[in-house]
Amino acid sequence: MALLVLKFGGTSVGSPERIQAVAERALKLREEGHQLVIVVSAMSGETDRLLGLAHALNPRADGRELDVLLSTGEQVTIALLAMALEARGCDARSYTGAQVTIRTDSAHNKARIRSIDDARVRGDLEAGRVVVVAGFQGVDEEGAITTLGRGGSDTTAVALAAALKADECRIYTDVDGVYTTDPRLVPTARRLHSITFEEMLEMASLGSKVLQIRAVEFAGKYNVPLRVLSSFEEGPGTLITTEEDAQVEQALVAGIAFNQNEAQLTVQGVPDQPGVAHRILGPIADANIEVDMIVQNVGADNSTDFTFTVHRNDYDKALEILQAAAKALGAREVSGDTHIVKISVVGVGMRSHAGIASKMFEALSRETINIRMISTSEIKISVVVDEKYLELAVRALHDAFELEQTPVGQQEDG
Amino acid sequence: MALLVLKFGGTSVGSPERIQAVAERALKLREEGHQLVIVVSAMSGETDRLLGLAHALNPRADGRELDVLLSTGEQVTIALLAMALEARGCDARSYTGAQVTIRTDSAHNKARIRSIDDARVRGDLEAGRVVVVAGFQGVDEEGAITTLGRGGSDTTAVALAAALKADECRIYTDVDGVYTTDPRLVPTARRLHSITFEEMLEMASLGSKVLQIRAVEFAGKYNVPLRVLSSFEEGPGTLITTEEDAQVEQALVAGIAFNQNEAQLTVQGVPDQPGVAHRILGPIADANIEVDMIVQNVGADNSTDFTFTVHRNDYDKALEILQAAAKALGAREVSGDTHIVKISVVGVGMRSHAGIASKMFEALSRETINIRMISTSEIKISVVVDEKYLELAVRALHDAFELEQTPVGQQEDG
Repeated sequence: MALLVLKFGGTSVGSPERIQAVAERALKLREEGHQLVIVVSAMSGETDRLLGLAHALNPRADGRELDVLLSTGEQVTIALLAMALEARGCDARSYTGAQVTIRTDSAHNKARIRSIDDARVRGDLEAGRVVVVAGFQGVDEEGAITTLGRGGSDTTAVALAAALKADECRIYTDVDGVYTTDPRLVPTARRLHSITFEEMLEMASLGSKVLQIRAVEFAGKYNVPLRVLSSFEEGPGTLITTEEDAQVEQALVAGIAFNQNEAQLTVQGVPDQPGVAHRILGPIADANIEVDMIVQNVGADNSTDFTFTVHRNDYDKALEILQAAAKALGAREVSGDTHIVKISVVGVGMRSHAGIASKMFEALSRETINIRMISTSEIKISVVVDEKYLELAVRALHDAFELEQTPVGQQEDG
Repeated sequence: MALLVLKFGGTSVGSPERIQAVAERALKLREEGHQLVIVVSAMSGETDRLLGLAHALNPRADGRELDVLLSTGEQVTIALLAMALEARGCDARSYTGAQVTIRTDSAHNKARIRSIDDARVRGDLEAGRVVVVAGFQGVDEEGAITTLGRGGSDTTAVALAAALKADECRIYTDVDGVYTTDPRLVPTARRLHSITFEEMLEMASLGSKVLQIRAVEFAGKYNVPLRVLSSFEEGPGTLITTEEDAQVEQALVAGIAFNQNEAQLTVQGVPDQPGVAHRILGPIADANIEVDMIVQNVGADNSTDFTFTVHRNDYDKALEILQAAAKALGAREVSGDTHIVKISVVGVGMRSHAGIASKMFEALSRETINIRMISTSEIKISVVVDEKYLELAVRALHDAFELEQTPVGQQEDG
């Protein structure tokens, strides 16, 4: 018997029929003897409907009242799921974030969980009930309703699993697990049986948007085994866990991630003096533009080139700021490109193995793909290339690292 | 400067445009210097939508979960109204029943308010804010969400007004006040400037469904001046108050009420013995059928006739029960009629004035309307007549008591 926290997103509870299916799935797990806490999101479309109403009344609606409004979405779902369970003779009880109590700070629309009082949930579990909890929401010290921001239901589930010391937190999504890369791009992409928290963070932040980053961070910090699996099909999904527990499958490289939403900006001929980086990036940060990769090369003639990437939506604004800054710095030229893509090879195995970088560059070179930027961290190597090479580059890397193969020692799904 | 509690029902907040209109109206009162607490219902249609979802998942949904679900309706409205006020530069704050705190018993779907903690609301009023409160809901000792049952928002408003010792509780509805009788039936019916709590209770329970009975009882008990007025038009409405405050207008009769939803049942030739009434009505009460008027006449030959009225929906069930009871009692015959109507003359003035009853019977007799049953209380006289005489009887009584005239000493609306 295990204590499991299950989380179902908006699509998985998008209609009465889908909610029935969730109830059936929960009942099956219960018959296997598990204790269950189920975290649910608002029914798909509901949050947008509520935002539409808010917009009609106040296009700049206040954080506090927006949270009062949006939190009703999950409250509807918890009541409906509890009813569906009770219709099947399963004793169930629903709780809003405030009722649990899930205590957060007061940052409306993007609150962070501070503590969870698990007494009520524990009491119900001990009484044999299934507990249904509203995701995405909490309550601050003043008793005001808060929300964790979009996708925050994953965080609710992981935080509850940590507080309850659950055996596993299962996130049901519309994909059946985490893949070595995007299967739409590489048909031979393989679902991973397990992956480490660190790898998952790199995969998620690089564009494989299966889970909320904060939820993965939280799970890693509190060591909550996290499983991603499909709401609609049977299957074991992918377990996200610690390095030791994931080891059985550890290949050198876990997967190939990519991000098509970035744009590149370059300041050429910058006088090579101390403080230059700050004078270029300071105004960018002041404008609340997030910078991802930064590369500066040793230059000749006391001048250097400075390149970085931002989200494509921020490109025009960043370019304008940069042109002013470049003039003040006496730089030669500002250029940029929105037709780029960032591709990353991710894996904890590369910590202890040399040669991953050279293998990566070799594979790209064999396809005569020009590399514009390179950036490395402990468990990933990222390159920026022309957007048109995206498919070619990802396939070449997937092949080079033999990701379509099941690693030695790995069993079939079971 | 007065402290006012305003209450707007589902139709009055049924669309973003209507909510805007409520905000405008509140702003006007605020500009006049009043402190405002606004109680709102769910947007019209929302409760039925939620009940539809519940029914799809569990046709016999549990009280607790139904309350979690239904309470979201008002929660949406409070947030939207607070946003609309803030969009107009008016500092506002919304509270659910649980947040206020409005403490109730645990009778889900029909809870009763036990106490109100007014500290938060008072704090906001002192800080110059408009406070928006969800009607119809509260929270029990365990922290579970409860609802007061349909129409309970009126009760929330009155209870808040009592707790805050508000100067007036204003109930905005789709009628512009309480009339001497139904204006659809009698075009000369006149809006009352004021009416006593007792009269309003008799008018309401007899079919003039302007206000929830419990709300009027509550207002009477705690002496909260209650005003019924239109959501859509300007005007002073009708003030419901104590006998002293309403006196300026007091005619002998306040109005003519009627109820078309009753059916009559008669047991004829019942042996005239002690315990007979109990043996007839006991089984009716056991079947949870409410009985309204009861009349028993002195009979000849040691037998009597026993007549009472029930809601039309309960007629078939009551008839069946009665036939069994009559057989056991040795009664001669059971008969009944659903084509009846109860008409009542209501007024605190009749306490001290004889002749109201004879004037009533005279008016009906002049129109050759046969009276089937008569029942009297301190401030009302009710008769049951054939349904076909409804319009004729009400108009005759309205004329006989000169209700179309403004009473002496009463000023025009101002």
